[in-house]
Amino acid sequence: MRYYLLLLFTLIAPIARPQKGDSVMVRMIYDEVLANGQCYDRLRELCKGIGHRLAGSAQAERAIDWGRDAMIKSGFDTVYLQPVEVPRWIRGQSESAAYTTAGRRIDLPVAALGGSVGTSGELSARVIEARSLEELAQLGESRIRGKIVFLNKAMDPLLINTGAAYGGAYDIRSRGASEAARFGAVGCIIRSLTLAEDRYPHTGAMQYSEDVQRIPAAALSSVDARELSIALQADSSLVFHLNLHCEEFPRTIQYNVIGELRGSLFPDEYITVGGHLDSWDIGEGAHDDGCGIVQSMEVLRALRALGYRPRHTLRCVFFINEEFGNDGGETYAREAREKGEIHIAAIESDGGGFTPRGFSMQGTDYQYEWLRRLDSLLDPYHIHQFRRGWSGVDIAPLKDDRVALFGLLVDNQRYFDYHHSNNDVFEQVNRRELELGSAAMAALVYLIDRSGIPAQP
Amino acid sequence: MRYYLLLLFTLIAPIARPQKGDSVMVRMIYDEVLANGQCYDRLRELCKGIGHRLAGSAQAERAIDWGRDAMIKSGFDTVYLQPVEVPRWIRGQSESAAYTTAGRRIDLPVAALGGSVGTSGELSARVIEARSLEELAQLGESRIRGKIVFLNKAMDPLLINTGAAYGGAYDIRSRGASEAARFGAVGCIIRSLTLAEDRYPHTGAMQYSEDVQRIPAAALSSVDARELSIALQADSSLVFHLNLHCEEFPRTIQYNVIGELRGSLFPDEYITVGGHLDSWDIGEGAHDDGCGIVQSMEVLRALRALGYRPRHTLRCVFFINEEFGNDGGETYAREAREKGEIHIAAIESDGGGFTPRGFSMQGTDYQYEWLRRLDSLLDPYHIHQFRRGWSGVDIAPLKDDRVALFGLLVDNQRYFDYHHSNNDVFEQVNRRELELGSAAMAALVYLIDRSGIPAQP
Repeated sequence: MRYYLLLLFTLIAPIARPQKGDSVMVRMIYDEVLANGQCYDRLRELCKGIGHRLAGSAQAERAIDWGRDAMIKSGFDTVYLQPVEVPRWIRGQSESAAYTTAGRRIDLPVAALGGSVGTSGELSARVIEARSLEELAQLGESRIRGKIVFLNKAMDPLLINTGAAYGGAYDIRSRGASEAARFGAVGCIIRSLTLAEDRYPHTGAMQYSEDVQRIPAAALSSVDARELSIALQADSSLVFHLNLHCEEFPRTIQYNVIGELRGSLFPDEYITVGGHLDSWDIGEGAHDDGCGIVQSMEVLRALRALGYRPRHTLRCVFFINEEFGNDGGETYAREAREKGEIHIAAIESDGGGFTPRGFSMQGTDYQYEWLRRLDSLLDPYHIHQFRRGWSGVDIAPLKDDRVALFGLLVDNQRYFDYHHSNNDVFEQVNRRELELGSAAMAALVYLIDRSGIPAQP
Repeated sequence: MRYYLLLLFTLIAPIARPQKGDSVMVRMIYDEVLANGQCYDRLRELCKGIGHRLAGSAQAERAIDWGRDAMIKSGFDTVYLQPVEVPRWIRGQSESAAYTTAGRRIDLPVAALGGSVGTSGELSARVIEARSLEELAQLGESRIRGKIVFLNKAMDPLLINTGAAYGGAYDIRSRGASEAARFGAVGCIIRSLTLAEDRYPHTGAMQYSEDVQRIPAAALSSVDARELSIALQADSSLVFHLNLHCEEFPRTIQYNVIGELRGSLFPDEYITVGGHLDSWDIGEGAHDDGCGIVQSMEVLRALRALGYRPRHTLRCVFFINEEFGNDGGETYAREAREKGEIHIAAIESDGGGFTPRGFSMQGTDYQYEWLRRLDSLLDPYHIHQFRRGWSGVDIAPLKDDRVALFGLLVDNQRYFDYHHSNNDVFEQVNRRELELGSAAMAALVYLIDRSGIPAQP
């Protein structure tokens, strides 16, 4: 029965709306992933065998080797590495505490922000708190100079989409240090970007402006940010001691890992599915973005296990260095353009391995209408969100007039509890939630492959 | 602004479809719950202060007192207890292990099923495995008599709705012991009803048939069920030792806890929102159903905090003994009928404190159409499922021609990882997911109160 159906699918001409047989194939995809899925075991290998893997690190090299081997074992036609120049930054040790004027020590562990300079020995200074960059500017240089700025801005809990809440607080991490330095600050500490009340500091990328001094920057956990704020209210003269051993080294070469299933009709047209292999250098990079990696590999594995012969070439890409400059995504798109590769679609999973809710997309009106027509086909799998919007950092450089870019939308209420922290570990991933995301992506890849998803009628 | 809007809402006549102002009020409800919500703190009190609370137990008595106090503190108009006769069963200690014919001991911890008889000393017998009740019947008496039956039926991972997978395997727990006894078995052990691979045994209610002997019954964790199955393949003569100290005592009186906000226009018409206060006697009954309890209380608290004056009387009910006979739900509905109380709607949350996805409902076509029209109003809150179907055990006895019964639908992929086990603890509940469920329920209660949700046009 199974192969008879597959033969039928391969013979019927593609058109732009779902066919009756599609619902059978989608069910087969879900069954394959839920019954025989390998993504959870692959994630365990990656998280427990290698752990975190910042681009430029030795662990990232090991992860690249692991990724290539895993794709070969999965039986992809072609597996290769694409060289990418990446930065190399090392966190080193960090120590931090506050001392009240009465001499009481308050332990306030921090995580240096990615890209921060070190302190060159211990930095000790008074602290000035601001709730936003706007409030910081109002304080002015006279009150800031010589102090450590404490940016205590919380993510907005009223936003249903936690990604939007993250976007709203992101500026204190990305620009906080440089904005503080503009007013003469000697260091910057921020409240972690999380909605949880806990003791995990969350790191993440920061950028320095060219026109101001580079001052060290680090994140406090949400609970410790509250503690520090309370302590400052009682004693505005308390002194914060910060010792960060961060170092930056020359850029180095690492690799995107690429695997393919060659297309039977249009081998030179590509549907790319991927996530980023690198993670921050704490935790295990499980949700961010180990899940996206193993889900993408599972998409090709499941379709192959079902005996499906794709019309277009399906590519699985493990991008390197999403977190710290998007070098992998930029390199991949640039080389694709140079080689004249036609990408008809790309799908990214980089929102955590949670229950999938739908897909965001960047493309033409016609492509978006195609996506919306999948509504009833995917309703049995509780896929209900079809929205225009951001797809993913790694695939964004592929944007042109032809390609349709998709992001897997998941239930992201818990995502920032884990994101960029020691709490982002394998144990926080639920097997079924992970597999359902992979199955949804595989279903979408199959449907794109059948339709060709043209940009215009 | 806020009070001006509320005044408007109170003056406009009710009609059956959502009004423009409704979207403002729904947003205010979400804001109130997400910014000032108390349900998470209440859940901590219940789970960490009292813990599990099987109906008939001393802990359940403490939970009843806690519930009444919490409702009084929340400022409900009227708070009272409704006597309910409940069973009293005590698990006692349990020991279990298998010994191979070579004398090797295999530790196989079990949880007695709720209602099981004890073993009256140690029960030692050979084991016969069956994958279903059908397979058990095929084995027949000659191969079963004198043995312990091992019902090793897994929940179907291919079903997207884990509740359906639970329903499909439920028979081994509810009827397994009596079906085994029919063929002369001396005991029954089952694979726990869970989709997770772990070492938590999951308990739950069982029933004995009147016409067969009562034999003891217990559940193995999913991992231990696999271990036992492998051990049996190697050594079909291994002996299982089971010692359960379960005891049943005479029925006793406990209480539904009821709190109200009196209606301004229709005080004798009720909208009831609730969950069950009792839990199984292991873990902390966090997802099942501490979450439903605290969410229901939060519904009334939030509406009151917003200054909303309900037209109908809003009732929050903590039902006692859902798990083991539904005495609370039956008593509540019977007394409501005896008093001539008109229930226009009831809403139950008993699927865990996970991200809400929508509502199931039992009611007339007209009421269902009313529900479906909330689609666009609730889309910003990611509420997309509006389905006819089962609402909840506690409120089911209220069913009549007038009432609309609703169940909160949540993302239930993880639910059975926790359900009825030592893993159902406060730490497994995410604050935001819990609060979003409560806000969705409060929005629905508000919209029902505005419309009156008539059974017919």
